[in-house]
Amino acid sequence: MIAPNMATMLCVLMTDVRLTQQQCQDVLKFAVDRSFNCISVDGHMSTSDTVLLLANGNSGSAPEGEHELTIVRDSVAAVCEKLAQDIIRDAEGAEHFITIDVKGFETRESAFRIAKEIADSALVKTAITGADPNWGRITSAAGYAGIDFDVSYLSLRINGTPVFEGGTPVRFDASDLSRQMKESRNVHLELTLSGGPASGDESVRFWTSDLTQEYVRLNSEYTT
Amino acid sequence: MIAPNMATMLCVLMTDVRLTQQQCQDVLKFAVDRSFNCISVDGHMSTSDTVLLLANGNSGSAPEGEHELTIVRDSVAAVCEKLAQDIIRDAEGAEHFITIDVKGFETRESAFRIAKEIADSALVKTAITGADPNWGRITSAAGYAGIDFDVSYLSLRINGTPVFEGGTPVRFDASDLSRQMKESRNVHLELTLSGGPASGDESVRFWTSDLTQEYVRLNSEYTT
Repeated sequence: MIAPNMATMLCVLMTDVRLTQQQCQDVLKFAVDRSFNCISVDGHMSTSDTVLLLANGNSGSAPEGEHELTIVRDSVAAVCEKLAQDIIRDAEGAEHFITIDVKGFETRESAFRIAKEIADSALVKTAITGADPNWGRITSAAGYAGIDFDVSYLSLRINGTPVFEGGTPVRFDASDLSRQMKESRNVHLELTLSGGPASGDESVRFWTSDLTQEYVRLNSEYTT
Repeated sequence: MIAPNMATMLCVLMTDVRLTQQQCQDVLKFAVDRSFNCISVDGHMSTSDTVLLLANGNSGSAPEGEHELTIVRDSVAAVCEKLAQDIIRDAEGAEHFITIDVKGFETRESAFRIAKEIADSALVKTAITGADPNWGRITSAAGYAGIDFDVSYLSLRINGTPVFEGGTPVRFDASDLSRQMKESRNVHLELTLSGGPASGDESVRFWTSDLTQEYVRLNSEYTT
């Protein structure tokens, strides 16, 4: 049960900065939206998640102005991102840690929906388990996310290698890329929309794991 | 790539009944909504699906009145249901054929969304692979479908055995039910809402398969 809107988790963050209740809420929402709500192992949302931010003000100093508040916010976000990534690294049976960047969309919501569909696709996950740079499974998952974009503006890189550009597959050394994917635990998918409907400046970073036989064994033999 | 809005499939239905173009469209939409659009193996929507209904009128007879048209419609729906079920029976690595009935909702759309979340949950699928009558994974999937219902009106039966009623688990013989699930290829999940918000008379029947180590092996070793 690890999917956006947090994972099965209790998280308590503490700081001695002095923050108002509203500042705490804003800082935490910003951080959680970019960390715990951007991970998925199996798409199954948990029933019991909590993230708390406690700011007791013991240091006696409060952030002055937007700039200092941004520093606090980004620090909290960095801690949350690290913790969220650790959940994915620890996913049941996972062999790959997958970072999905979806860029160039008009709204964060659109980019998020596409990233989540890619992350939750059993076919994308199993392709990565098999070290297969399968652009078709990834772009088709983007296609059924319900966002009305024009595929001729879409491009995809896997671990930095262009595999799909302007709506068509690109010639690339598939066996070399596959070997890279086999040797490294990290896989980076980078999907970019560069024009047409639904395009813009928003982007989302999302993390997921692959789907292995070990995941199935663990979750079919173990009762939760 | 087998999920609602059809599977990876070309389907041509033929009849010698005489139908108008509009009748063909209505009959086919009714049938597809209750068959090919109610199945999912892996939640990954395909890019290339077609269902055609050809009615050449060679028999010389056209349906008279609503009653006869309903007979034609139900016959087409029965053929589509059989074909859709065959796709699920043939799913990669599947050990169980799962029928999900979601009943007692105000709209078909709400019931459908819940059925699809249950069908697409890797945790529900692996529980059934392991013959585990896991009411928690099933009801929690219903809970995150985004429908605002009251769990205290929710009940669940697995293969006819009540396991969850009025929002709480029921005492049942788990080892006996597990043995049934192990011995039979068919599993029947029946989720019913009996009152409160979102309740009503609409229901949906959905079919899916379980998630096995063999599914992962096939889809990680095979490139599509």
